Amino acid sequence: MGPAPAPQTDTLEQAVLAANRRFYAAFESLDLAEMEEIWVHEDWVQCVHPGWNLLVGWDEVRESWARIFSNTERVQAAISSVWAHVQGEVAWVACTEHITTSFAGGFDTALVQAMNLFVQRDGAWRMVAHHASPLPAALEPPVQ
Amino acid sequence: MGPAPAPQTDTLEQAVLAANRRFYAAFESLDLAEMEEIWVHEDWVQCVHPGWNLLVGWDEVRESWARIFSNTERVQAAISSVWAHVQGEVAWVACTEHITTSFAGGFDTALVQAMNLFVQRDGAWRMVAHHASPLPAALEPPVQ
Repeated sequence: MGPAPAPQTDTLEQAVLAANRRFYAAFESLDLAEMEEIWVHEDWVQCVHPGWNLLVGWDEVRESWARIFSNTERVQAAISSVWAHVQGEVAWVACTEHITTSFAGGFDTALVQAMNLFVQRDGAWRMVAHHASPLPAALEPPVQ
Repeated sequence: MGPAPAPQTDTLEQAVLAANRRFYAAFESLDLAEMEEIWVHEDWVQCVHPGWNLLVGWDEVRESWARIFSNTERVQAAISSVWAHVQGEVAWVACTEHITTSFAGGFDTALVQAMNLFVQRDGAWRMVAHHASPLPAALEPPVQ
């Protein structure tokens, strides 16, 4: 009998959570080169920024991050309620983003619900989809 | 040399798109038993209805559909801009939902961007995540 599968599952999930943190670190650093490292560069990747229409393909997705980064002076993205699941070479993370943005002339705060999808490439988890959508400003207690 | 992989990929994608259509048919029919058939019943499935907080686990997800169905007299869900991708035993579909809802005392229309995630179970694609979020009422032309 081999070892119980739990440790490997935990390790996989930890790696996915690390990839998820790296994504938000790239966002906070407004570092396009780092964001490029995180995503798969193929024509089927998908991204929905809060209130934006769906973007499909790396060219559109990259352009959207370039635009967001160039319009932002500073951003903080604190993450809570993180749920990860791994299935084979695909993993997804749901989390709540607490975003504070500074831009020319002001700042803004937003509560955002995100679904982040990753696939394994050469042993690393790379992002293939990001769907982020606005939440009501005041979080209600979770439904039981 | 074996056959080119494209036909099998196409067939897989067609099956995923059929599962996605079945999900919206269940939604339109307000048929909870049918919705139960579509989802995986495990404690890690996820659902975000437009403007709702994240629901985790089949019990919460089932309860949300029961509540939505009991508060809705009639609903139409037309789908456009459908993008599907299959990776191993996981598949996801992005699509725009054009929702018209009738309830006691009125009706409402909404434009919703959805990400639907499916896994293969016993040869069938079953839903494991649904993230739906409001779009601006007037669709802008897609970013090039």
